[in-house]
This record gives sequence, structure tokens and C-alpha cells, in this order.
Amino acid sequence: MSADSLVPETRVLAVASHVSRFCQMRYVGNKMATLVMQLLGCDVAALNTVHFSESLQPYRLQAIQGHQATAEQITELYEGLCQSHLTDFDVMLSGYAPSAAAVEAVGAIGMDLQRKAEKNPGSFFWVLDPVMGDQGRLYVSNDVVPAYKRIIHHADLILPNQFEAETLSGIKITSLSTLAEAITAIHATYNVPHIIITSVDLSRFTQSPSSQTTPSDSLTVIGSTTRADGSPRLFRIDVPALDCYFSGTGDMFAALIVARLREAVFAADPQLRTTKSWVSPDDVKATDLPLARATIQVLASMHNVLEKTMEARDAELRAADTRGDETLSEEERLKREHLRKSKAAEVRLVRNVQYLREPTMVFQAQEWRKEDLPAGSQ
Amino acid sequence: MSADSLVPETRVLAVASHVSRFCQMRYVGNKMATLVMQLLGCDVAALNTVHFSESLQPYRLQAIQGHQATAEQITELYEGLCQSHLTDFDVMLSGYAPSAAAVEAVGAIGMDLQRKAEKNPGSFFWVLDPVMGDQGRLYVSNDVVPAYKRIIHHADLILPNQFEAETLSGIKITSLSTLAEAITAIHATYNVPHIIITSVDLSRFTQSPSSQTTPSDSLTVIGSTTRADGSPRLFRIDVPALDCYFSGTGDMFAALIVARLREAVFAADPQLRTTKSWVSPDDVKATDLPLARATIQVLASMHNVLEKTMEARDAELRAADTRGDETLSEEERLKREHLRKSKAAEVRLVRNVQYLREPTMVFQAQEWRKEDLPAGSQ
Repeated sequence: MSADSLVPETRVLAVASHVSRFCQMRYVGNKMATLVMQLLGCDVAALNTVHFSESLQPYRLQAIQGHQATAEQITELYEGLCQSHLTDFDVMLSGYAPSAAAVEAVGAIGMDLQRKAEKNPGSFFWVLDPVMGDQGRLYVSNDVVPAYKRIIHHADLILPNQFEAETLSGIKITSLSTLAEAITAIHATYNVPHIIITSVDLSRFTQSPSSQTTPSDSLTVIGSTTRADGSPRLFRIDVPALDCYFSGTGDMFAALIVARLREAVFAADPQLRTTKSWVSPDDVKATDLPLARATIQVLASMHNVLEKTMEARDAELRAADTRGDETLSEEERLKREHLRKSKAAEVRLVRNVQYLREPTMVFQAQEWRKEDLPAGSQ
Repeated sequence: MSADSLVPETRVLAVASHVSRFCQMRYVGNKMATLVMQLLGCDVAALNTVHFSESLQPYRLQAIQGHQATAEQITELYEGLCQSHLTDFDVMLSGYAPSAAAVEAVGAIGMDLQRKAEKNPGSFFWVLDPVMGDQGRLYVSNDVVPAYKRIIHHADLILPNQFEAETLSGIKITSLSTLAEAITAIHATYNVPHIIITSVDLSRFTQSPSSQTTPSDSLTVIGSTTRADGSPRLFRIDVPALDCYFSGTGDMFAALIVARLREAVFAADPQLRTTKSWVSPDDVKATDLPLARATIQVLASMHNVLEKTMEARDAELRAADTRGDETLSEEERLKREHLRKSKAAEVRLVRNVQYLREPTMVFQAQEWRKEDLPAGSQ
């Protein structure tokens, strides 16, 4: 292993609240994000307010009722950093915040770091994951949505999933055309220069001719960096879908993009890294954007690591000791099986660092212009 | 980087309490230990009870007055693991515990894991760092000492520093001879099969002829694995001392030895890994012990990483922005300088993973027999 496989030295402030069930066993939330960035060579300060869940049951299916992080706590922790002159971060990654007040506290941190870096454009970059819900359902309280709508104006890159993009844009995404409209609206409404919609299942867009979309075993990631006039510069990357669910993959994506985007910006025209928000000049094609190049790397790493995780999971489940299960009650047996499956499906990070650093998969970005869309999909 | 540089797959339970000042910025306590083990390829469950310090000042020189972890909390967290059948650990590493009750709670966990592994000798190993004090001074309350004395009987390997070895053995270490006596006494009193005394400054042993000890710019690490009759099998490794202080190096040593000892045991005679406490047969020389081989690797990694840390620290301090310092009060200026130095001296782990995994330093272990000691040192 060489140091060459590390990304440029990057100091990251990772702000996220999470509820610690019993023990830091699972790679979720800030724990996943922090470890992924560290494994790629970033120096990470994790500002997370840890809360013990009232229940000690791990792998619960229900929502967690643990103590919530207060906004004051987040602010206080950040003030501690300021008093100690420990705020020379290159990137901030903000993730789950448990309340509207917490979202605003995180927003205030992002804005303060931006103010501090004002004299050196490009020296600070804020990646915001607007964690609100998925699959048509909010999993935060209603007032978190307007709180995000207020702070997103200040972020450099946001990472909504399809549902969150709908929530932010007010546009229901049912076709390639409405997808493009939603991204255009988010750029325009929030003045946010970079967007990645982290997973779109195009096969559900029934009105799209299949030739222009993707087979149902694919997932599509759509990204865009604005042009000078605020219009989107769209690219799409299709990746084979893996038939499984792993928790923490959203955090994994966010962490990887932090490391890989800065790396791609450093590999681009030297002027870019001193340009506010790292927005490439208009003559850079969508597929040549650092955002597109970084996303390709991120998806390749994720595909490799998750494929290895599936193999390890299957081997673990095959080898599982199920003796005694038949003596249990149906409820107890199902619970044990669920635990076994959840544990086996933990993302295998530490044994697969080589794929995280040097993925073997090769994906392609395609430029995606609205005028290319077939009439049927518009 | 290849997967070959990872240690064998190892599931570790890392139990330690630590006080989180404002933010998980520094690699101390369980955070350092966890990351080091992960970087080497171990799967780590960190059972740590995190407590926010009442003060937000990082890098304080004084003792920390934060909320203490309760023994009940530790026990409760472990019970959560048991209920979920998540106790299939290969190694437990236990570090700082804030009270006598907490030490005993940790002891109960170690003993329970041992009981669970009873039918498969060698399948579980407990490394215990009896954190009590340093340089002649206790930094835990007095009742923690007898608590450690009660639980150490059950540990497989303990990692006292010189002061802690004196505290456990009741023997003041002032010479090579008293050092050997202390180790012999610890083996005999606590029936603990493996000991490493993590740093001994032999140059302070004024009565030792210098030819038999080491120059003052060296540190010596002494280890021993018992023979069948309980007598020590001693080795020593001399390493060049680095002229600096880095916090967290004790945790770094403990984490590295967890990974490296199991690796060395796996590389030894296959029978060893199914032998209780991995005690090598009597015909294995001190220098061929897995404990000696692992310690050599650990010290080489530490030397490489700390040397790189010193270089990075010096570069960071040279580049430090001290403008405005002259306008500060003397107290404020000194405080800022202290912060700057403390921050610069953080162990550089993530940028130096290659040295952690594949150290370039080569150290030697020497067998150390009591009869070899010169008369003057006895």
C-alpha cells in the first residue's frame, strides 16, 4: 500500500447527530462517514452529539426514541472549536440533524466557516446532505423541511435523494423531464451550485421509452453544476443495482464525495481551487466536471465494497449457527433471524479499504441535455 | 495497497470510558485505539461511554472534571450486546475506566466473554491496560488500585507502564534486577501469562553499568510470557527515544499489540491458537515468542508514525500564523501557543497508514536472562 492512494490532505468537520444504540457497533451516521473519510486520508473532526437510545435493542426496525441533540449543544461544541482556533477546515460535511433548531444550528456553523474563509475563495466547501426522508415519506418532523429550505442557500453541494429533491423543489419526479425540472428549480430557488441526486430508479418512469432510460436492474445518479447563468449542467451515471439493502450507504456516499470532489478539483485547472464554490467555467462539459469525475469514483468504490459485503454476508449467513432456533417461539426465532441478517449485512469497510481507495469498477458519465430527451419522456 | 497488509480478521471489543471534550478531535482513548485497529483491518465494536467535559476548553493541562461513566452504564451496554447475540469477539481490549466500580464492571465483561469461549481454548483473548498513573503518580482514585488487583487474574496480557508495574508488584523498580523481580512477582501473584512493560528508562538506573543497559536516548520495552512452571520468559527491545511527547501513544501501543499479537499467534505453530491464553511451549525461546515478534512490529510502526508526526508537527509550527500574537496578553499568548503546539503534535495516523501496516524500521528483541545481569545491576 502506498501513500499515493490517499486523497489530498483535507481537514473535514463532520457534523451530525446520531443516536447511539448500546454501542458503536454499526457503521451508520457520522461513524460511517468519519471512518470512510479517514480511510481515504482525511483528517476528520467529528462534531456529533451522541445519545443513548432508551432501548438497548440494536437493529430495531422502529424509529428510535432516544434523547435528541439540542441545538444549543451543537452551537456550544462549535464555540469550543472557535475559542481554540480549531476551525481551519477545508470541507464541512453536515448530515442528519434531529430537529429544525438543530438544522439551523448546523446552518449557522456552515455560514460562520464560510465567513471565516471569505478572503480565500475556494478554501472552504460545504457539503450538505438534507436528510429528511425517503420513498415518499418524511422521517423528520414537518418543521425540519422549512429549516433546510432556509439553510440550503449557503451550501456548495447538496445530496438529496429523489424524495428530498421533490420536497425541496416542489416538483414530483415522474419522468426524466420532471427530474431535470426539479434540478433546475433547486439550482434557481436555492442558488446552490452543485447537486447530486443520489439515486433515481428510472425504470419506474413508465412513460419513458426504455431505450432512453435504463434496465430495471440499474440505478441512476444524476448530478449537475450550474453554468454562469444559473442553468444546470447535467450528467447521469448508470450503475448496476445490487439486490440488497445496506444501512449507512447514504453516509458512505457523502463521505466519499467529500474526499473525491476535492481530489478532482485539485486535478483540474489550478484556477478552479481558488474559485468560489469550485464552479467550473462554462466551457467545461458536464462529463468533464470535477463533480462528475468524483461521482464516478465514488460509485465505483461503493459498488466494489458493497459487492464484497454481499459475498461476506452470504458466507456469514451460510455459516451461521442456527442450532437451537427450532426450540424458540416464532417471535423469538424471527427476531434472532433479523439480528443475524442485520449483522451480516453490515458494510465491510475495514477489510475492503483497497476498493475504497482504488476501485476496480469503471463507470461512465453521460452528458444529459434536455433537448436530447425523447418527446415521450417530457 | 493490497489486502495482504491487513492482519487476520479479528473482532475486537474495545471497552473504555473517555471524556469527550467538545468534539472528537483528538486521537485519544478509545478513539485512537479503535481507529488504529480498524486501519489494520480489525472489526471493532467500541463500547465506550462518552461524557462531555464541563469545560469546553480543549487541550487542557488540568485533570478533567467531566461526568463520570457509571459502572451500571457499562454493564447495561454489555447486556445489550448479549441480548442481541453480538458477543462473538476474538479479543477484548480494556483501557481507562473512571472508577473502581467501572473497573469491576469491565472485569465482569472480560470474565463473561471468557466463560462463553471456555469450550474453545484460545478463541478469546483479553488484553488489559491497567491505566492507573505514570511517573510515580496515581491519576485515578486510590480504590481503583485494589479493583485492578482483583480483575487482573483473569486477563491474558497486561500492559502496565513502569509505575503501574511497581503498583501491581509492590516492588520499586530501580535496576534491571528489581525490574525482573517485579515481572516475576506479577506473573506469580496474578497468574497473568503475558506482560509487557511499555516503557522503561534504563538510563535512570544509576547503578547499572552502562554497557549492559542502554544509552539515555533509548527506551526499553520489556515483555515476558510465562513458562509452564510460572517463571518469566523475558525479552527486551531497545528503541531510539524520540524527543517529544504525543498524547495517545499508550492507546496506540495497546491497539497495535491486539492486532499484531493475534497475527503472530496465527503465524506460529497451529496448535498455539487453540492453546489457552496462547502460552507457547517451554522450548520456544523468549525472542521467538509471538509476544516478542508482535512487540517488535508494534514498536517499528510507532517509531515510523511518530517520526512522521514530528516532521509534520515541525512543518506545521514553522508555517503557523502568529500574526496578532504580539497584541495579546502574556497569558493569552501562551495559551494560544500551547494550543498551537498541542494541535500540531496530534499523532498523524491517517496519512501514515502505510507505516502502521508495513513499518520500515527493524528492531531486535534480545533474550534477557536474570543470570546474564551483571553483578552491579542486581
